[in-house]
Amino acid sequence: MSDKKQLPPKTGDLSDWYTTIIQLADLADYGPAKGTMIIKPYGYAIWEMVQQAMNPIIKARGVGNAYFPLLIPMSLLEKEASHVEGFAPELAVVTHGGGEKLQEPLAVRPTSETIMYNSFAKWVQSWRDLPILMNQWNNVVRWEKRTMPFLRTSEFLWQEGHTAHATHKEAIEIQKWAMDMYAKIYQDYFAIDGYVGLKSSTERFAGADTTLTYETLMPSGKALQSCTSHDLGQNFSKPFEITFQDNQGNDSFVWQTSWGFSTRSIGGLILAHGDDNGLRLPPKLAPVQVVIVPVRVEPEIMTHCQELLDKLTKVGMRVVIDDRDDESFGFRLNKWEVKGTPIILKIGQKEVSESVITVKRRFDGKEDQVSTKEAAEKLQQLLESIQVMMFKASQDFIASNTREAKDYEEFKKILAEHKGFIRVNWSDNPEVEKRIKDETKATSRCLIAEDQPGRNFVTGEPTSQVWLFAQSY
Amino acid sequence: MSDKKQLPPKTGDLSDWYTTIIQLADLADYGPAKGTMIIKPYGYAIWEMVQQAMNPIIKARGVGNAYFPLLIPMSLLEKEASHVEGFAPELAVVTHGGGEKLQEPLAVRPTSETIMYNSFAKWVQSWRDLPILMNQWNNVVRWEKRTMPFLRTSEFLWQEGHTAHATHKEAIEIQKWAMDMYAKIYQDYFAIDGYVGLKSSTERFAGADTTLTYETLMPSGKALQSCTSHDLGQNFSKPFEITFQDNQGNDSFVWQTSWGFSTRSIGGLILAHGDDNGLRLPPKLAPVQVVIVPVRVEPEIMTHCQELLDKLTKVGMRVVIDDRDDESFGFRLNKWEVKGTPIILKIGQKEVSESVITVKRRFDGKEDQVSTKEAAEKLQQLLESIQVMMFKASQDFIASNTREAKDYEEFKKILAEHKGFIRVNWSDNPEVEKRIKDETKATSRCLIAEDQPGRNFVTGEPTSQVWLFAQSY
Repeated sequence: MSDKKQLPPKTGDLSDWYTTIIQLADLADYGPAKGTMIIKPYGYAIWEMVQQAMNPIIKARGVGNAYFPLLIPMSLLEKEASHVEGFAPELAVVTHGGGEKLQEPLAVRPTSETIMYNSFAKWVQSWRDLPILMNQWNNVVRWEKRTMPFLRTSEFLWQEGHTAHATHKEAIEIQKWAMDMYAKIYQDYFAIDGYVGLKSSTERFAGADTTLTYETLMPSGKALQSCTSHDLGQNFSKPFEITFQDNQGNDSFVWQTSWGFSTRSIGGLILAHGDDNGLRLPPKLAPVQVVIVPVRVEPEIMTHCQELLDKLTKVGMRVVIDDRDDESFGFRLNKWEVKGTPIILKIGQKEVSESVITVKRRFDGKEDQVSTKEAAEKLQQLLESIQVMMFKASQDFIASNTREAKDYEEFKKILAEHKGFIRVNWSDNPEVEKRIKDETKATSRCLIAEDQPGRNFVTGEPTSQVWLFAQSY
Repeated sequence: MSDKKQLPPKTGDLSDWYTTIIQLADLADYGPAKGTMIIKPYGYAIWEMVQQAMNPIIKARGVGNAYFPLLIPMSLLEKEASHVEGFAPELAVVTHGGGEKLQEPLAVRPTSETIMYNSFAKWVQSWRDLPILMNQWNNVVRWEKRTMPFLRTSEFLWQEGHTAHATHKEAIEIQKWAMDMYAKIYQDYFAIDGYVGLKSSTERFAGADTTLTYETLMPSGKALQSCTSHDLGQNFSKPFEITFQDNQGNDSFVWQTSWGFSTRSIGGLILAHGDDNGLRLPPKLAPVQVVIVPVRVEPEIMTHCQELLDKLTKVGMRVVIDDRDDESFGFRLNKWEVKGTPIILKIGQKEVSESVITVKRRFDGKEDQVSTKEAAEKLQQLLESIQVMMFKASQDFIASNTREAKDYEEFKKILAEHKGFIRVNWSDNPEVEKRIKDETKATSRCLIAEDQPGRNFVTGEPTSQVWLFAQSY
């Protein structure tokens, strides 16, 4: 690792810190084709943790995992007008297959509404076939001009849930259920607080009636749209002719939702919690929760380490011993700090003879000693409390970086001085939003209240809606 | 389901039976682009079972899951001559991205050697960086002319393991370890027996020095190459310049392996175990191991069913109740027969009052009664014994369909009368193999012994090698 770049301070050039820590912590690397990335095992293990957290919730709701083809005939993609308009500029297109030019070009999926709903139309005849509740974990390609590992790459991994229902009410329930699940995952696993609300007509998904979003804030004061859940209304069921006969014998179009959560979340995780010494991973998503670092690789010390590993593994912790004898003790400690391991245990001759372990928590660097006998119980408690502390820190950060603006002047002043989230009375208007974006680079993030009378911060017109604005990633 | 096609007998047109059962059991459907398929939740759940079985074994060996990009620059793919020659005819090629023609076309990965090893070259400097042990679960695209769901599709899902080592010995150990793992998964989970051996030079992977294969036999008497594990030698490390400095300071090329197991295995599973009534799933891979079918959906019966479900779920069985009241009892029983659920429980008024359950095992249709009190224990034992019986049936099938041929005449006679595996003394020779294939459609499947002196069944020359031949999928 000695030939690798040093980690710059996080408070300096955040992009530089971000791209460096991704390499240093062995999370990812750049792929050979433009804007692509390689997710290395340490980074992928975090994604597997997310899958393990989300899959049981998805399945308990009756949603089944499935797999639809990667390649979508262009004619299908073009069936819903605003959808293709939104995605056309980002498509990767296969024109040749098996050595021949294809009769019809195939798009590499940017999202799977069109290919899935083409099948839904075949599968649904009667109300008995509803609801359809499907999810897939896959890769999608969106040709991006400016890319950044995890946050915006030409290819990314995600889950995309897609449902079809007999009533609009049922669809909206699922749209909300999905966002509730996402918020829970962000709060309980990522330890990242955020706001849930509806997107403006400018910002919503191409083809959706409404889009719910989870908006978080990064240390730069920029917002990150962290995941979304869409009410698709009948926008797709009409062009795709997904109809069902209800129990009265009448034909109707189904009501649909889609919702997605991607590896972008790992970018948010790195940015939100990292510090000048490297990553800080919340215990629930850390591939390694506890690392045991022997001061020297000697038989007596190693026996102690192994016993400790067994004890902690037995109660379900994810633990490794770092006994590389070609690296110094200090080097090894530093390596796991950089990797963000929540608990680092130092075991030397002193610890062995006194039957204690020296415990360093990565979150705030505090060191403590714990008797070997109580290790399992105490460290379990410590992991839980670190998870809580990290979420508390995120809550505090968001709270102290959400400011109110009464008018456009105040809005611009806050942006210039602090960035962060700005709460304003406003109502959805694409032209006004465009003007705000052109003048300030800020966009609406989401609608967070509808019952607080005031005056539109730009136009001065009365409105009860409260929106969050911010510059965004 | 009433409008769906009836299942034809398996002993009739096997392809017809196969494509029909896939639809009837709700495993998969056809995708809109040529040769693609949709894996529906019931089919995908089997794949998830395979992942759950394999991931712990892979990880325990120190292999980390990772994710490399889908799109491979053509120049990378062309670096290893025999590799590109093998895959070029099957490539899907992206020529346009983000609305513009690309400077260099990108292949949709048919396999990931080239894109992974391009990075390995960057990551490996010294012997300390070795071994590299990586795996990925992903989708690959190979443009196929004749396709069949699961068995041969233009896109399929798989895991591909890739490793790099300081010595050839270490690489060969991993090649064997991977095949041992695959054989164990096939035998213990799929309940499918088979032969492990080396491929001939004609049949081996494009770019490999040797290929190990697991060869199974389908009811048609055709062999199925079920998964492979390759010793890549230094064939890729030389063109990709993956070199390391050993602990003496000398530079050497690494030694490599790759190994893959795909959704093709599910095609094998369907063919191997299905019967005239539908699928038969081995308990270890069955998404639903036990289905509880109430004779009528009445409160007293349903309470009984629910208690039973709780009891069985508690001991770890995968159980559902089918209480659809718009379907008759007989219809529901038949549905789960078609879906291949290992144990079907019938619960009616009689069962409730006598505190028993009627147990039908799908494997051989036998029915029995078990007291409700003993249900958990007895059904657990039954699941285990069904798994054993299914594997035994597979062993018997393979044993009785492996025949010996002394010469080419006998070989042709066996092919004409029985198909199946044919054991012959032979030695690897591409020209002779081509002649055999042209004349009989049979190809070598694998080398199974090297110590049995005899005469080459075609040329009459002495050889101690024994090979299996068969017609194959």
